[in-house]
Amino acid sequence: MKTLYTGITELATATGNDLKKGSAQKDITIIRDAAMVVEGETLLWVGERKDAPAADRTIDFRNKAVVPGLIDPHTHLIWSGSRLNDFEARVQGVSYEEILARGGGIHQTVRYTQASTAFEMVSLAVPRLNAMVRSGATTLEVKTGYGLNHDTEMRMLEAIRDLQDFTPARIVPTLLIHLPPKDRDRKDFIREVVEKWIPEVAQDQLAAAVDVFVEQEAFSVQEAREILEAAKAHGLHTKLHADQFHALGGVELACELGSLSVDHLEASTGDQIQALAASNTVATVLPGVTLHLGLPAAPARKIIDAGGAVAVGTDHNPGSSPMFSTSLALALGVRLNGLTPAEALTAMTANAAHALGLKDTGRLEAGMKADFLVLDSHDWREISYRFGNAVSKVFISGKEA
Amino acid sequence: MKTLYTGITELATATGNDLKKGSAQKDITIIRDAAMVVEGETLLWVGERKDAPAADRTIDFRNKAVVPGLIDPHTHLIWSGSRLNDFEARVQGVSYEEILARGGGIHQTVRYTQASTAFEMVSLAVPRLNAMVRSGATTLEVKTGYGLNHDTEMRMLEAIRDLQDFTPARIVPTLLIHLPPKDRDRKDFIREVVEKWIPEVAQDQLAAAVDVFVEQEAFSVQEAREILEAAKAHGLHTKLHADQFHALGGVELACELGSLSVDHLEASTGDQIQALAASNTVATVLPGVTLHLGLPAAPARKIIDAGGAVAVGTDHNPGSSPMFSTSLALALGVRLNGLTPAEALTAMTANAAHALGLKDTGRLEAGMKADFLVLDSHDWREISYRFGNAVSKVFISGKEA
Ligand SMILES: [Zn+2]
Ligand SMILES: [Zn+2]
Repeated sequence: MKTLYTGITELATATGNDLKKGSAQKDITIIRDAAMVVEGETLLWVGERKDAPAADRTIDFRNKAVVPGLIDPHTHLIWSGSRLNDFEARVQGVSYEEILARGGGIHQTVRYTQASTAFEMVSLAVPRLNAMVRSGATTLEVKTGYGLNHDTEMRMLEAIRDLQDFTPARIVPTLLIHLPPKDRDRKDFIREVVEKWIPEVAQDQLAAAVDVFVEQEAFSVQEAREILEAAKAHGLHTKLHADQFHALGGVELACELGSLSVDHLEASTGDQIQALAASNTVATVLPGVTLHLGLPAAPARKIIDAGGAVAVGTDHNPGSSPMFSTSLALALGVRLNGLTPAEALTAMTANAAHALGLKDTGRLEAGMKADFLVLDSHDWREISYRFGNAVSKVFISGKEA
Repeated sequence: MKTLYTGITELATATGNDLKKGSAQKDITIIRDAAMVVEGETLLWVGERKDAPAADRTIDFRNKAVVPGLIDPHTHLIWSGSRLNDFEARVQGVSYEEILARGGGIHQTVRYTQASTAFEMVSLAVPRLNAMVRSGATTLEVKTGYGLNHDTEMRMLEAIRDLQDFTPARIVPTLLIHLPPKDRDRKDFIREVVEKWIPEVAQDQLAAAVDVFVEQEAFSVQEAREILEAAKAHGLHTKLHADQFHALGGVELACELGSLSVDHLEASTGDQIQALAASNTVATVLPGVTLHLGLPAAPARKIIDAGGAVAVGTDHNPGSSPMFSTSLALALGVRLNGLTPAEALTAMTANAAHALGLKDTGRLEAGMKADFLVLDSHDWREISYRFGNAVSKVFISGKEA
């Protein structure tokens, strides 16, 4: 059955499957008095209402703007325990070192996650996922990384796979090699990741990509290279967490390896920006961390001006970004990272799709998945403007969520 | 009929009708395994579950935290037109002067509001109000101020009164003397406000308070004094917008006059902070403006440390704070103004009630209105932590909204 959607004051979308680099990031298409024809999961036709082909039924959105469903390319949605004590302590001026000494910090999340069954992980993640979908997410990446050992990381991947049964949103799993476990020899740990984890993940298709956190307290560039080259050798995509606090070379490594994305970038400056501009690696910025921790923002404006491609993610996680809204992340990308509304829309749709290696979502064009949002406004820019939720209906693969 | 509410992991509330100044702002009461008894609109009893008196029926919230309904003490919820062009221009680096020259800025909102009927004003405000209630607002102040002439200001007050018919939330109207009209003599305008507007508003009980914007582009301290003394003489409360860009003496005037609150305070320093600490005037800070415009934050931390009382408001308005979520404003008060979770809760409940002159809401105690929120968490601090909406149920005067 073909459904014609009308009553669309304006439809705003990036077009074309190329990565939107530099000035192309703002070149979205805006169709006034638009219509769409959907059959099953797929967009058959998008254009002006007056040119619409026949369909079996018509649904009128009554003068609302439509944009593509949002794609959140960076989340840590699976986690156990609570970091509210840490939060309260930190805003009262307690140092992270002291919080760690009290048994808080990321190692607390690791302890609780290691003690959780896959069922518990899913039970905790579903309400978070539902909040994300209400705020406009139609596709979300979900990372492992709080396991730090083989069994918990595989259980996290199992939970991420199971999560798909509880949501219409598309879930894209990533294996994150987050921190070296404190109780193990680093070389030994990396050997296990390369020789056991990655082959197993590739064999069973448990993740689309492998991600490594490059930072002084995490992995070196050389260690990340070893892990990510193994991932590539097994046919997996690669990603990096890099330049969050120090520009150690993670961005350059991502660009050299042809990683899908390199994420964070708060400490990136000239050389990193040039490397990004010269590559097809997406620069994913995470404004929730900036707002939550009061740290500098990633230079998204400079990256686009230099010719790079930017995506925005929530970085949903309990310690550094308790962000339960994808559209709020988009709105923060405008305020904190200097994006324009059009650039922010591309960042969380077409470019975010590239950051996940997806070709069938992130744009409203014939042949794409019918993933779209009806806004609580006649103006598509409302989604970048409002602090709150400007999304009134979420359609994923042609069905209202 | 008496209803017993149970399944409350913890109930967090300020207690006692005194203004929470200085260290008292953080001294909230937390009752574990709590219960409440409600009859009609009123809380009859609050305490530990094990001590609960008998009731006619029991409703179990199934292990959720409960906090008082939020009070938004500063909104400009009635406005017409759209400032999305201004927003897009500003984030692309266009100056406010150039935006004004293009016909944008506040005068555009004034033009559209002047051209609106009361019915149009209400139609536009109701969806904004609904979003505020979903985010936890049970009481909201709504200001006039986009009229700049007698008839439009009175029509705005009419619209604010009519708004009450469309929402269970309590609406508190304020007459805001916002800007001197460009086409009128200032003295003449102020004389009309003092001799005509204020007597009419007092006579017909159209507003609870009169507010004046003291700033270089708006009114002087002397002009504000003249207006607010007239308001007091007519038995109306007073408020000020002061120190947004320049500390001109508006804070000191508010404290001298015994105003309910003085709002903004981004430019307040030592003398103003001391004046606030020595007064019972509430310092209302507006973090949405800080985030939207990228300007400095008001020194709420210093005001509390000096012994003052802080409230937080959304400042919902189309130009400087498109904030459609009260709980997000609370969460921003922690990140941008240095409040702790407990201080932020008091700021948007008990102290916000004082900022509006209300005695029957803002605390969960016997005899108060049954205005409360059930959170999507067993921990009350979630409301200050989450970027998104942590409110799952909103009760206003004993009824679920
Ligand atoms: Zn991350
Ligand atoms: Zn205001």
